[in-house]
Amino acid sequence: MPLTFAPRLDNVETSAIRELFKLLGKPGIISFAGGFPDSAMFDVEGLREASQKALAEEPGGALQYGATEGYEPLRAQLAAFMQAKGVAGLAPQELIVTTGSQQALDLLGKTLVGPGDKVIVEGPTFLATIQCFRLYGADLVSAPVDADGVQVDRLEQLMAEHKPKFVYLIPTFGNPSGAMLSPERRKRVLELAVKYQTLIVEDDPYGDLYFGEAPPPSLLALTPQVPGSREWVAHCGSLSKVLSPGLRVGWMIAQPELLAKATMCKQFSDAHTSTFAQATAAQYLKAGRMPATLANVRRVYAERAQAMGAALQRDLGDAVAFTQPQGGLFFWARLTGAGGKVRDAGEFAKRAIEHGVAFVPGAPFFARDADVSTFRLSFATADVARIEEGVGRLAKAI
Amino acid sequence: MPLTFAPRLDNVETSAIRELFKLLGKPGIISFAGGFPDSAMFDVEGLREASQKALAEEPGGALQYGATEGYEPLRAQLAAFMQAKGVAGLAPQELIVTTGSQQALDLLGKTLVGPGDKVIVEGPTFLATIQCFRLYGADLVSAPVDADGVQVDRLEQLMAEHKPKFVYLIPTFGNPSGAMLSPERRKRVLELAVKYQTLIVEDDPYGDLYFGEAPPPSLLALTPQVPGSREWVAHCGSLSKVLSPGLRVGWMIAQPELLAKATMCKQFSDAHTSTFAQATAAQYLKAGRMPATLANVRRVYAERAQAMGAALQRDLGDAVAFTQPQGGLFFWARLTGAGGKVRDAGEFAKRAIEHGVAFVPGAPFFARDADVSTFRLSFATADVARIEEGVGRLAKAI
Repeated sequence: MPLTFAPRLDNVETSAIRELFKLLGKPGIISFAGGFPDSAMFDVEGLREASQKALAEEPGGALQYGATEGYEPLRAQLAAFMQAKGVAGLAPQELIVTTGSQQALDLLGKTLVGPGDKVIVEGPTFLATIQCFRLYGADLVSAPVDADGVQVDRLEQLMAEHKPKFVYLIPTFGNPSGAMLSPERRKRVLELAVKYQTLIVEDDPYGDLYFGEAPPPSLLALTPQVPGSREWVAHCGSLSKVLSPGLRVGWMIAQPELLAKATMCKQFSDAHTSTFAQATAAQYLKAGRMPATLANVRRVYAERAQAMGAALQRDLGDAVAFTQPQGGLFFWARLTGAGGKVRDAGEFAKRAIEHGVAFVPGAPFFARDADVSTFRLSFATADVARIEEGVGRLAKAI
Repeated sequence: MPLTFAPRLDNVETSAIRELFKLLGKPGIISFAGGFPDSAMFDVEGLREASQKALAEEPGGALQYGATEGYEPLRAQLAAFMQAKGVAGLAPQELIVTTGSQQALDLLGKTLVGPGDKVIVEGPTFLATIQCFRLYGADLVSAPVDADGVQVDRLEQLMAEHKPKFVYLIPTFGNPSGAMLSPERRKRVLELAVKYQTLIVEDDPYGDLYFGEAPPPSLLALTPQVPGSREWVAHCGSLSKVLSPGLRVGWMIAQPELLAKATMCKQFSDAHTSTFAQATAAQYLKAGRMPATLANVRRVYAERAQAMGAALQRDLGDAVAFTQPQGGLFFWARLTGAGGKVRDAGEFAKRAIEHGVAFVPGAPFFARDADVSTFRLSFATADVARIEEGVGRLAKAI
């Protein structure tokens, strides 16, 4: 007799992307497939010093069990970090530390979603969000996205129609869309939150990775402009894309009751986030190295995004359509079919692998009504020369 | 309109122990309440060296995203560690790394437990296990424990009656019971697993903390002696009690299908355990420091357990009954009421706090049919002098 698993597992499928990733081991392949930052840009020396300080100054704090809410010095540093990004007066107790922002999503699912509950996400949205919420029984509804982010009129219709448990958005340099929600739409989203008394989950792992001027303030930072909206925003942040994913340090800011319930759930999920990683992150932030680190990653990713955009235009012409991203890690593109070229991104991905270049087709990023002509290219981990070579291979594959 | 939370939250209550813990801040209090190791015994220097090596030798591996299953060098070290404890031929792919063994429990709940499913636990058992499984809708059934661990005849009756999704045991130096499952009962448990085709979850965070001779092999190590039993055992291990809880490094060994489902669930829970912590733990194990560390903690905890047992007998006499633990961190005791003394451990705990000593009443450790005369004393964090002083205060409080 085999084991029988919980019914919730029937709601998720093994990722189609995983199959593709297995092919990435092929020698000489140029990968635009990943969703991660470039290891070469990690501030290893800064993290080394921070971890040493953590062990030297408070070994008990760094190695013992800690509070589920998070290591106090890190909560204080993160509150200051968020204040510097326009969240005025944020107190350390208004945030909890999570094991990456992935855990914040998991805790939101665990805390809020019961079987059959509706949740609105962007179409397309972060793949692991879709599966994460479905594991708790969520019935996902997709709100369409354009270059200015989620389409707010459509979002309002969907909110009115579905009365969702919450709305999940990546307003700034979304994964995979790369889109940036416009200031006008940000304000409108907050108004909808108040009007429909509906929680907006703002996932913001990419907001610090801007190439030109800074993006508009986060939804959280804008709440003072929309009376009553603050309690309807839960904000998830992360050090993964800007400092190091390996620390698994994320955070969630939310109204007190939600934060208390999420903390209780976290207690039974992993007790607390590694205090060693938390104390290291706290020392790193305290040492004041973050501004230089951010300036460096912004500069390097901006160059790569620039190179990828130019190469795509030069080598693929009107066979693909895309908006040049202003930050983040991704191009989101669409096969136009112009000149009788391939229109199915899954087919294109297979051909691309044969030509020695990998990327991720867009379909799995849609909770519903997948657009199979879309695909995602990451410019984060290849240098400019490899980007140009890789896009050249794409041109051959198309 | 307030937020409405998921129905699963109705299954858990805020811990009664939390209220008690708030009183621990009282100055001068001696605490036997904690469930954690002594920070003074952490091998800070060894962990410092290990973290440095991790960053120096493979900074990308220590700071980048990693495989959900765990960091390969750590899986290899942990497999070797388990082999040394009698699990012959264990391959690294037969285990996944979890964010503390708490996460292994969470993944078992997420993977296996649907609303209303029966799960058998020991009475008493680890508090966070009760809440963790209830969050997934488990209906818990308690199997009684004595000094030789779970009573196997009663366990068989309960398995036959309830057809549980799984049976959760802490066979070696259980929390809070301190009990050690006898070799005969271990074999019987494995036979029951096969007979009833029922998964046994063996949680083993304390097995390395023995004071005299080593305890019997783990259930997992004994599976070769009971044909067909290996696939019915899931084993959870942890570095928290022997090395450092702050690393949040635990692991789970299980049959391939269960391990694959748990890995999928983990992907959406926290993506992976901190690679920085994992790489540090891998370097620590590789450096060969573990045997000396284990010898040290065994020696110190043995002294403290000895001191506590002697003091309890001397100062409280027949007002309490207990079995001297042979390992672990805990005494599990019962108020006998002899001489008209207090029999309610909750009442006793309140009086004890007034006398400057804290411990945890036993009732919350029972999923059903709480024995309110029981309580748990940890001898891990106070030195011998404080233990004797603390037990003296208990005598006054009683």
